[in-house]
Amino acid sequence: MSVFTDVPLAQKLEGSLLKTYKQDDHPNKMFLAYKVCMTSQGQPWVSSVVLKTRMQIAQDPSLTYEYTPVMGMKSFIQASLNLLFGKDSQVIMENRAGGVHTVGDSGAFQLGAQFLKTWRRDSQIVYIISSQKEPHGLVFQDMGFTVYEHTFWDSTRLCLDPSMLLNVVEQAPHGCIFVIGNIGNCKLTQGQWTQLMVLMKSKQIFPFFDIPYQGLATGDLDEDARFLQYFVSRGFEFFGSQSLSKNFGIYDEGVGILVVVALSNELLLCVLSQLMDFAWALWLNPPTTGARIITSVLCNPAMQGEWKQSLEGAVENIMMTKETGHKEKLRLLGAPGSWDHITEQKGSHSYLGLNPQQVEYLVKKKHICIPKNGRINFTCINSYNIDYITESITEAVLFTKDSEK
Amino acid sequence: MSVFTDVPLAQKLEGSLLKTYKQDDHPNKMFLAYKVCMTSQGQPWVSSVVLKTRMQIAQDPSLTYEYTPVMGMKSFIQASLNLLFGKDSQVIMENRAGGVHTVGDSGAFQLGAQFLKTWRRDSQIVYIISSQKEPHGLVFQDMGFTVYEHTFWDSTRLCLDPSMLLNVVEQAPHGCIFVIGNIGNCKLTQGQWTQLMVLMKSKQIFPFFDIPYQGLATGDLDEDARFLQYFVSRGFEFFGSQSLSKNFGIYDEGVGILVVVALSNELLLCVLSQLMDFAWALWLNPPTTGARIITSVLCNPAMQGEWKQSLEGAVENIMMTKETGHKEKLRLLGAPGSWDHITEQKGSHSYLGLNPQQVEYLVKKKHICIPKNGRINFTCINSYNIDYITESITEAVLFTKDSEK
Repeated sequence: MSVFTDVPLAQKLEGSLLKTYKQDDHPNKMFLAYKVCMTSQGQPWVSSVVLKTRMQIAQDPSLTYEYTPVMGMKSFIQASLNLLFGKDSQVIMENRAGGVHTVGDSGAFQLGAQFLKTWRRDSQIVYIISSQKEPHGLVFQDMGFTVYEHTFWDSTRLCLDPSMLLNVVEQAPHGCIFVIGNIGNCKLTQGQWTQLMVLMKSKQIFPFFDIPYQGLATGDLDEDARFLQYFVSRGFEFFGSQSLSKNFGIYDEGVGILVVVALSNELLLCVLSQLMDFAWALWLNPPTTGARIITSVLCNPAMQGEWKQSLEGAVENIMMTKETGHKEKLRLLGAPGSWDHITEQKGSHSYLGLNPQQVEYLVKKKHICIPKNGRINFTCINSYNIDYITESITEAVLFTKDSEK
Repeated sequence: MSVFTDVPLAQKLEGSLLKTYKQDDHPNKMFLAYKVCMTSQGQPWVSSVVLKTRMQIAQDPSLTYEYTPVMGMKSFIQASLNLLFGKDSQVIMENRAGGVHTVGDSGAFQLGAQFLKTWRRDSQIVYIISSQKEPHGLVFQDMGFTVYEHTFWDSTRLCLDPSMLLNVVEQAPHGCIFVIGNIGNCKLTQGQWTQLMVLMKSKQIFPFFDIPYQGLATGDLDEDARFLQYFVSRGFEFFGSQSLSKNFGIYDEGVGILVVVALSNELLLCVLSQLMDFAWALWLNPPTTGARIITSVLCNPAMQGEWKQSLEGAVENIMMTKETGHKEKLRLLGAPGSWDHITEQKGSHSYLGLNPQQVEYLVKKKHICIPKNGRINFTCINSYNIDYITESITEAVLFTKDSEK
């Protein structure tokens, strides 16, 4: 008689789309939903500085490989915070921004959620944008939080709509947690920013920022983190998950930071000490290879310069794929409608602007795997598959136009 | 008004001894409780193959650094299981031993405890040996398990006593979880092994093995894992935390495995699928650098041979430190009593065999930081500090003898 008799096979939450793709044996099958930035050769993008740095580290005889403290690598945390807020920013100078080195961004959400579960018992409600529900929303859900999904994508007007965001905040209950991802694409006016923050402040909504790839949205590191300054200057306290895996191209090292901003250094130290207790039980010591690579690059001006250039290059490639590779091809093929919404969205992941019927057509008839909301990773498109993809999209749009008649 | 007003400074559980040591400004202060094997130069021990392998990996252009699956690196898991059970062992051939690649051994305990919390609700009691209470016992405790500490160290007879172990098992309640660490030092006879397993089987006690440094106890990898065979052959199902950080000397990579043995492949797959769900929320993807280094070594016979030699060398050094460095010096200094118990215990960490008063004397008067139970890391002793340490121990023993009068 087995101890495990009652244990059923788990319904795997993750990668259901990738699973569909893998099980498909059609020769033209394609997967446009990889999480990471891909190169034109269909490989995960890696910043050119990373290879060099990896070699330097391997050759460095002065390094010891002893356990890191529970908090993680201090120099890594400091360098990452400087990148986010600016070395001379007030919040850094006042010692009220800190962080815990975590195992990837999932680790940061796990850690933050454990803290909020324990120390904000009166508000266990989380709002999260649909595209972030998996995996981050589920971390909260598994822990007993009530998780509400929402979206700012207006599928009729084909744009990200700030007023949809404001509506959600208006309806959200007092004291809830708001996970805020790449809000830059939402193009809030100064007035809307003010309105958003006044609303959040009055309702004591706690922001939990997700900064998955600073620099890979606009190519400008400061620009991509600017919205944080707004919240800092308005006196918000918040958490943030800062991942540096994607913007360095070290996906498999599980390197992240849970960023904490508090009103004072004293408060910050209390929060960090509690977080360390949780981290202690979760993994005791975070892994260091990724953190070492990042710190080496960030602390060396020449290397940092090269890294920034590589980010700019990656973002140029994304925009080129969207502009000439995709939008232009669709126009030439006579795909009905404007495709400006594709280039109006920054970053690798953007809404194609297709309706559910069109998405289904691509998945079922053309074996192109894309999520139901039609938000794809544009860097999965390259010279080898662009023709098939744009032709299929054109077909999907025309097909569904015909079937509407 | 801060969100964090009610958050107190956490009482850090870990490293209280290390903290005492760091705060001590006495010139002769010493710390004999490091977790890891130290070299004669006072540095954490690193197997000579690791540096080479690290370089080879950094130079390998064929490697991609994409996210690993939630389960972790398959080749790493397989190589580690082969190391533990033997490539041709029945349990491997029958596909009923598996594992999840975790973030260090703490991650393995976290993952295993989460599973047991969910799937063995009727028995939330854990027995653990005192020296493992921190950190592993606390992981269970934090999760709501009732944790009982015990010890097999007979402080009068100065030996590890199997009958103390058997007594604990006899008194333990039906269905509890038994964390079993380096049991090799306990020197059970064949009859006692049988008795132990019959007892555990009849009480449906679930074993959770801790294999923190296979090969670093006796210098023989198979010997150090032999006790697992006993449990396998008796038809036990169990979990095991297998850490390969210490026996490779890659402490900061957070590399571990939660090993699962089930009665059938079908049961195993169910358990692994549930564990993956937990891992998914905890860290999503485990870090790979450490796993890559280990796999490269284990899958290359020449490298594996070199690694085994380095383990043998490390163990020889440990025994030499204990024998000629420590026991012999104490004899020459005329420290009363026999010190044979030091060499009778295998591995780097062993009981000094001092009473609480003697330990206190060393800590307070001589500034030698050692745990209350007197279990020290013998590799912290080297030619630079041996004289001071043995003289201090002799003094402590004589002092407490005098004060007894």
